[in-house]
Amino acid sequence: MSEKTALHGVKVLDFTHVLAGPTCTMILADLGADVVKLEPLHGDDSRVFPPFKKEESAYFMSINRNKRSIAIDLKSEKGMAICKRLVEWADVIVENFKTTTMKKLGLDYDSVSKIKKNLIYAAVSGFGHTGPYSEKPAYDVVAQAMSGMMSITGGPDGRPVRVGSSIGDIMAGNHAAEAVLAALYYREKTGEGQFIDCAMLDGLIYTLENAIVRHTVGGELPRPLGTAHPSIAPFQAFKASDRYLIIAAGTNLLFSKLCACLGRNDLAESEEFKTNHLRVQNREKLADELQIELEKKTCAEWCEILEKQHIPHGPIYAINEMIEDEHVKIRKMIVETKHPEVGTVRMAGTPYKMSKTPGSVRTPAPKLGEHTCEILKSELNLSDIEIKKLLEEKVVR
Amino acid sequence: MSEKTALHGVKVLDFTHVLAGPTCTMILADLGADVVKLEPLHGDDSRVFPPFKKEESAYFMSINRNKRSIAIDLKSEKGMAICKRLVEWADVIVENFKTTTMKKLGLDYDSVSKIKKNLIYAAVSGFGHTGPYSEKPAYDVVAQAMSGMMSITGGPDGRPVRVGSSIGDIMAGNHAAEAVLAALYYREKTGEGQFIDCAMLDGLIYTLENAIVRHTVGGELPRPLGTAHPSIAPFQAFKASDRYLIIAAGTNLLFSKLCACLGRNDLAESEEFKTNHLRVQNREKLADELQIELEKKTCAEWCEILEKQHIPHGPIYAINEMIEDEHVKIRKMIVETKHPEVGTVRMAGTPYKMSKTPGSVRTPAPKLGEHTCEILKSELNLSDIEIKKLLEEKVVR
Repeated sequence: MSEKTALHGVKVLDFTHVLAGPTCTMILADLGADVVKLEPLHGDDSRVFPPFKKEESAYFMSINRNKRSIAIDLKSEKGMAICKRLVEWADVIVENFKTTTMKKLGLDYDSVSKIKKNLIYAAVSGFGHTGPYSEKPAYDVVAQAMSGMMSITGGPDGRPVRVGSSIGDIMAGNHAAEAVLAALYYREKTGEGQFIDCAMLDGLIYTLENAIVRHTVGGELPRPLGTAHPSIAPFQAFKASDRYLIIAAGTNLLFSKLCACLGRNDLAESEEFKTNHLRVQNREKLADELQIELEKKTCAEWCEILEKQHIPHGPIYAINEMIEDEHVKIRKMIVETKHPEVGTVRMAGTPYKMSKTPGSVRTPAPKLGEHTCEILKSELNLSDIEIKKLLEEKVVR
Repeated sequence: MSEKTALHGVKVLDFTHVLAGPTCTMILADLGADVVKLEPLHGDDSRVFPPFKKEESAYFMSINRNKRSIAIDLKSEKGMAICKRLVEWADVIVENFKTTTMKKLGLDYDSVSKIKKNLIYAAVSGFGHTGPYSEKPAYDVVAQAMSGMMSITGGPDGRPVRVGSSIGDIMAGNHAAEAVLAALYYREKTGEGQFIDCAMLDGLIYTLENAIVRHTVGGELPRPLGTAHPSIAPFQAFKASDRYLIIAAGTNLLFSKLCACLGRNDLAESEEFKTNHLRVQNREKLADELQIELEKKTCAEWCEILEKQHIPHGPIYAINEMIEDEHVKIRKMIVETKHPEVGTVRMAGTPYKMSKTPGSVRTPAPKLGEHTCEILKSELNLSDIEIKKLLEEKVVR
């Protein structure tokens, strides 16, 4: 790890599993924190999620790179004692259990902040630690539904559609990471730690942007519009002769350029489409007119034409096409991790392109308990004999 | 502002407009930074986006709360001189122009970091500042398309669907905020500032989660699945007699409880549905069977039944229903801002529930140039006479 990282020296004790919590600690790890993932002896639940490479879950690997793993039986007294020493070691704790779990374990914020002053403790959950739903179980798809996000995503047929990735988990993970980072800065200034409560439902509501004011101010009930934008047109997908492409030509200038490309200056001059406001009002009629022309050439042909006129556009990439795109490669947004046993796994790179402390993918995800001995030795100063005994007694793995 | 905030005293000079950049500075402002939004004399483009309340854009208001506005003509020499004094004032600069714009203005990182050492400078853009597409114009819908996100979102009919909010802008704004926060921490440790380059395309690729490894490791080409999850079942929307609801019962235990609720223990015992793996393989057949039963009661009736069995579920809320939900109210995820002229506007609250320094919505979005005089006076020590002259000469507004 010769490269400088922003969070060098920040110690994170990571109790997280599956996705929302691990997203938070992945962000911290990508930014350089030393993240120790404390797993039960059977491991994070997502270690059995497909797809697999040599019996290791690629799902798990893709969101746990840059972390170390220690496997501890927290039901045993000795295991809990080790855990509490790791609490003392840590600057930051992150967990995403049900809101009652850490309290039952005696590892809730009130308890552990007595062990370690100045601790920053982030709890990530479906509905948060307050309010009537705080003890309800939640998954991403429930949060997508109850946030209203699902009500504005989809086609005109009214059948519900989720965002294709688990954006509820991911937003909560990002917001928790933001809160941890802000709390680290605050701790540098004041010496104080604190408790952070981030929820999937909250995170998705924060992500609805104009849908809320379109209702509270505009009086509209926002609905799904396929690929179209509620207040800009044309700004959506069209079908070329071979496949779909996106055209985003909302300003009058871009729209008239687009019409010229299509040989349809009549549209730019039409009273129905003269302003963005009118184009939004007559969106469907406009889309039909544009669609007639766009079907006449391939997506690649249109991209070449639109490119020359600087009209924002793009193909709708399948995952394999995105991965092979030259720009994506140069931005290092798909990276390879090399594990001595599992081999190469390609996954998302990091979006933190920072000139002095770039985010980076430095190590592959750990095997279960891969760093148990190393952490017990170097962070907690246990002897080889003590470690051997803990392994034999199945306190650690 | 009696409440403590994490970023108290952090000065952000905000050159952003529309959505991606303003999302970044909204996060910093919600966390307590002093964000001065430097606008051209005609204002941020999004000030003319609908809906409106008393001629002010609620779109603009919802993502620019907690900020101050100063309007300066950067094409005038005097305006640029004021701008450069604000650069000296700032800890952080955020901008989301096309990648060439700030250089043309002489306000790119290389130039301004000579004026102010230790500056943290975040540039948010569609494709980033490197790579072959770096100068291409991009909007959210283009980034959604080219990231692959659109290829995994939608129904089975193959018609493309965008995520209903502009998640490309929003992720880039979040990642830029994370990088700025990490850079602030690093600056506390080392005294060094740096340049940050965050892109919408990168941000969405980072947000695809398992879709990438399902392709690179699993060899699958991820496709849209409506509301269903690629590797968990049942975990999707079903239609009750009156409306859709979500049921997320992926484990064997939850599935057998669900079958009992439906009076269909035969499904839990069936060889076709015994494990999650089999349920995913036979997802459509299973969904059809469950659908038959679920149509027999209303959504509210099912919610009551599922609640008692602790089976994760939820209605698909429209925006107005989400806003009226008791839990959402208690979590303060919809807040009111009160502007002396515009009146009350309801918008998203902040997801940063921090015990010592909670994120908060303290002030409504500024009117254009609302704080011009205040900032020139208190931050740059200009006299009333000097300010009056600048106003008369239309250097500021």
